[in-house]
Amino acid sequence: MQSRITVSVSQYLFARIKEIGVRSVHGVPGDYNLVSLDYVAKAGLRWIGNCNELNAGYAADGYARIHGISALMTVAGVGELSASNAIAGAYAEYVPIVHIVGQPSLVSQRQKKLLHHSLGDGNFTELARMSDRVTAKSVQIDCAKQAPGLIDDVIAHCWNTSRPVSIILPTDMVHVPVLAENLTRPLDLSAPRNDQALEAHAADAFLEAVRMAKNPIFLVGGYNVRFTKRREVKLLAEMLGLPLFLSASGRGIIDEQDHNFKGLYFGDCSDPLVMQKVRSSDLIISIGNIHSDLNVASVSWSFDPSKMIEVRDEITHVQGKAYPDLKSASLLQAIIRRSATSISIKRRQDLALPMSKIAPETGNGRMPFTSAAIMSQEPAPGDVLRKGVRMSHTLSYSEETNSISHDWLWPKMSDWLCPGDTIIAETGTSNFGIWSTKFPRGVNFISQYVWASIGYSLGACQGAAAAVQDSEQPDRRTVLFIGDGSFQFTCQEMSTIIKHKLTPIIFVICNKGYTVERLIHGWNESYNDIQEWQYRKLLGVFGADRGSYQTHQIRTQAELTALLQDPSFNNDQVLRFVELHMDRDDAPSNLTILTQQLVTPEAQSQVAKCRNEE
Amino acid sequence: MQSRITVSVSQYLFARIKEIGVRSVHGVPGDYNLVSLDYVAKAGLRWIGNCNELNAGYAADGYARIHGISALMTVAGVGELSASNAIAGAYAEYVPIVHIVGQPSLVSQRQKKLLHHSLGDGNFTELARMSDRVTAKSVQIDCAKQAPGLIDDVIAHCWNTSRPVSIILPTDMVHVPVLAENLTRPLDLSAPRNDQALEAHAADAFLEAVRMAKNPIFLVGGYNVRFTKRREVKLLAEMLGLPLFLSASGRGIIDEQDHNFKGLYFGDCSDPLVMQKVRSSDLIISIGNIHSDLNVASVSWSFDPSKMIEVRDEITHVQGKAYPDLKSASLLQAIIRRSATSISIKRRQDLALPMSKIAPETGNGRMPFTSAAIMSQEPAPGDVLRKGVRMSHTLSYSEETNSISHDWLWPKMSDWLCPGDTIIAETGTSNFGIWSTKFPRGVNFISQYVWASIGYSLGACQGAAAAVQDSEQPDRRTVLFIGDGSFQFTCQEMSTIIKHKLTPIIFVICNKGYTVERLIHGWNESYNDIQEWQYRKLLGVFGADRGSYQTHQIRTQAELTALLQDPSFNNDQVLRFVELHMDRDDAPSNLTILTQQLVTPEAQSQVAKCRNEE
Repeated sequence: MQSRITVSVSQYLFARIKEIGVRSVHGVPGDYNLVSLDYVAKAGLRWIGNCNELNAGYAADGYARIHGISALMTVAGVGELSASNAIAGAYAEYVPIVHIVGQPSLVSQRQKKLLHHSLGDGNFTELARMSDRVTAKSVQIDCAKQAPGLIDDVIAHCWNTSRPVSIILPTDMVHVPVLAENLTRPLDLSAPRNDQALEAHAADAFLEAVRMAKNPIFLVGGYNVRFTKRREVKLLAEMLGLPLFLSASGRGIIDEQDHNFKGLYFGDCSDPLVMQKVRSSDLIISIGNIHSDLNVASVSWSFDPSKMIEVRDEITHVQGKAYPDLKSASLLQAIIRRSATSISIKRRQDLALPMSKIAPETGNGRMPFTSAAIMSQEPAPGDVLRKGVRMSHTLSYSEETNSISHDWLWPKMSDWLCPGDTIIAETGTSNFGIWSTKFPRGVNFISQYVWASIGYSLGACQGAAAAVQDSEQPDRRTVLFIGDGSFQFTCQEMSTIIKHKLTPIIFVICNKGYTVERLIHGWNESYNDIQEWQYRKLLGVFGADRGSYQTHQIRTQAELTALLQDPSFNNDQVLRFVELHMDRDDAPSNLTILTQQLVTPEAQSQVAKCRNEE
Repeated sequence: MQSRITVSVSQYLFARIKEIGVRSVHGVPGDYNLVSLDYVAKAGLRWIGNCNELNAGYAADGYARIHGISALMTVAGVGELSASNAIAGAYAEYVPIVHIVGQPSLVSQRQKKLLHHSLGDGNFTELARMSDRVTAKSVQIDCAKQAPGLIDDVIAHCWNTSRPVSIILPTDMVHVPVLAENLTRPLDLSAPRNDQALEAHAADAFLEAVRMAKNPIFLVGGYNVRFTKRREVKLLAEMLGLPLFLSASGRGIIDEQDHNFKGLYFGDCSDPLVMQKVRSSDLIISIGNIHSDLNVASVSWSFDPSKMIEVRDEITHVQGKAYPDLKSASLLQAIIRRSATSISIKRRQDLALPMSKIAPETGNGRMPFTSAAIMSQEPAPGDVLRKGVRMSHTLSYSEETNSISHDWLWPKMSDWLCPGDTIIAETGTSNFGIWSTKFPRGVNFISQYVWASIGYSLGACQGAAAAVQDSEQPDRRTVLFIGDGSFQFTCQEMSTIIKHKLTPIIFVICNKGYTVERLIHGWNESYNDIQEWQYRKLLGVFGADRGSYQTHQIRTQAELTALLQDPSFNNDQVLRFVELHMDRDDAPSNLTILTQQLVTPEAQSQVAKCRNEE
């Protein structure tokens, strides 16, 4: 009987979207997706409705980084191309987004009707193809019989590759009835099973290399690890009891309070001791890293394959030997099982998870669809207490008139951040400066160290805040650090944050332009300047009600110290917006070191000048 | 000797950009284009510096529609993809933009360095390929010897196809010296010469068809005619003395005051007499049209090829017979020369241009690089006078409390628009409503009737206003009509308008959401609503100085009538920003007729309801 029951394609699609835990759908309405939009609310999902598609794509990225996966809806042509930069970023950074593209009816496409949003030829297929390079899989729903299988398959592919996929939905398919039968079974998100023999060889080679190494270390990044492998990485590091370092993208994957955490590796910008330990290791176990210039902050030093184990889904390398196509979650579980029996386990009693909790061989070790933060440890009451104490002794009168420098700001923030925070840093002074900020337990960290698209973080902040609001711990804070130049790219998403009564804490660094660009070239060139805005006044203009938000203008160290201690700033559950006015010519030391490798001679001398002035 | 002189690749490139009359370069700085940006100012060009790349692309499109061609600078990956929707729009709508993409050094690309803004693989070629489908030609500058030829060729191709091209400039090519020799000769922008025999056959067939036809008419659109063929179309229409109609995109190509102009053809939304004349013609001479649903506002009626002459660069059809690859400027000149001698010329004395003015056979009839408006007739003093008179009798007390309806607004604007205005209408209620507005002489009209990307028009307004400011008639007005939903897509370009002290007159129709979408589906659905902003307050927030702008809040017919008569509003050379508050449920009758063909039943009934209420 069950097999006779039908639902519309849209009901089927959004039932699956809801099943994977998505509660808010990002996107922009357009003539070719309007009818399917009716099914969003009918499925019990919240329609966010962003101001434009690029911002919607950034927001879907932020939502996925917190929840584990997200959904984005745009319209063919204009919408899908506007979102393409966000989709490419999600592809580069391993963020799974199910992108639903509303297309004109199959009938009008077959008749080659010269509809708008085409190139004047009525061809929408070629337009869709433009995003193939940055999409893990793309399917057009053109057949009721195949629709349920296609939808299930592409969503599972999105989850297992941790990359964006598209579902292209023509208007005349929206209402078409399909068999509901598949909905009686949970969506199968298990990864393709690894070749068992190859997996065994790789696991043995991994452990043998560790056994033979004198000073092996872990170097953990955030790529293709964020959602599905956090548990395995943490457990394996505990069991092997090896020193663990995090790359820029890896922050939040492992707590910086864990006893085997030994520091942040930022290439040439690292603490000298950390740099020495990493670069002198005879076996760097690199998990979830892309060795991009920003993630490992190094163009000058490169890793020696013979002293490396590299684990990522596309590729497993043990000391130069390749083990292709091994899904790393399953591989890591195999290594864990072997190591549990084959080598002495240090501090077994400290294990975050008893062995019984390890996913069975058949599973892919994926975590349940709850916010990533819930996976990591809850804040200990002590954390909050210590925070108070730390804060109290940071205020001193000498500070009062001092302007805020990057080298003062970022360590200062270590005291103020709370366990469980979602911390977002824009590409620029923020995501370099924050290397000097120590993170508390159980944080999520969002930044783009590969794609590095400026303006991204404000959209991501809206999406992340919505995901936290949708989660089982809706009171956790979302904290954004963004520069003024970047803020201008995507400023209208403040309106979306206001519309949905989201309550992130947003720090806008007001320093009159594109600081990273200044460091690279054109320190005093007008092309690196921006129009000065009264940023805090945007909230009222965008329709925020009195009492629903706080704005602050901060110019000195004393003012910021006082603000960070202000109970209303810390405790009021409202949108908090802080203008941090800083010197145009100041930059984080980290950033000046890194950019030395990229810059032109004239910029170099200016940077030297700037650093001497510090 | 000359041949020994060298200049850098960038000097060469911007010398050519300047030679084609571009005075302002649009774009956004990024680490891979910074060094080349130094050469913009050195070449005596203005750097606009937009808030993001999509907006910069829209602005470059607007600049090109006024000046004839434009230049856009972005950075590889993030920048070029953000701009891709604007570039696709320019491709679909025949707008020539020279898109300069700053890429990492060839050295680092060859070494496959894992640089940011790549997909984590250091491959920037694949990213560049993503835009190939919407780019007429794309060249990477990787060889000093070939650079001058490549640059000359791709700019000429941009001009002759009237479509966007890309010049990909790696950082290590920016300073490379190249021979300056080519710069001693003007850039050759002449179109490829037509096959003379084929052109002769097509011209004869064209005139023979006209001779045999009982009631032939011209139907002129704006595609691939806007810049290079305006003169020929106008002249041929005059010489043949046939009734001439304009499609939506054709407005501004021919003056609506010309004696042979007989009306605007908007398909099913046309004046019944116009519809009857066009549809009963036994020979429709269609020049520069794409028969898209919006340009000819018709999904229900289609043209019969046996009763058509179709002239566009890609294609010439005479009563169904194809004449491939004929450049239409040259073809039209051939037809003009034949008709001048072979048939009686009506009203020869009325000709706008004496025969001597016709471009020689060898030329491509392109206009000089001056604003398109300069080509068309200058405002007669009488126009201005009549305007005053008309305005004076439109005010009556009965209006005072009436709210502003679309059917009242758009005819009203006929009285207020001035000869020489640049008129920009956003896709939506504006570019449908404006069909009811009569245009004065010598206007430029900017709207997207094929690509229809909402938000486009505010960026285009910045670019068009900059082009007017750069022209020989900098005091001509730029007037934008845009809806609130569209405005939110690209609002930050108000900041760019303010930064460069541009003085457009901007009408924002505030009606609480996406009206076109409501008409198609979901009249009362929240996904068609938007967050309400205090739009006029954005100007101060974006840094406009007191006295440098006017804002107005208009709610009634009397208020608007008074505003349009206010000398300070009409004469002050400042940015003028008008909030036009209109009823959420009102829409232009044109639009409701057209959307009937697209909409779902529930929307249809709502539209009917709305129309009955009028």
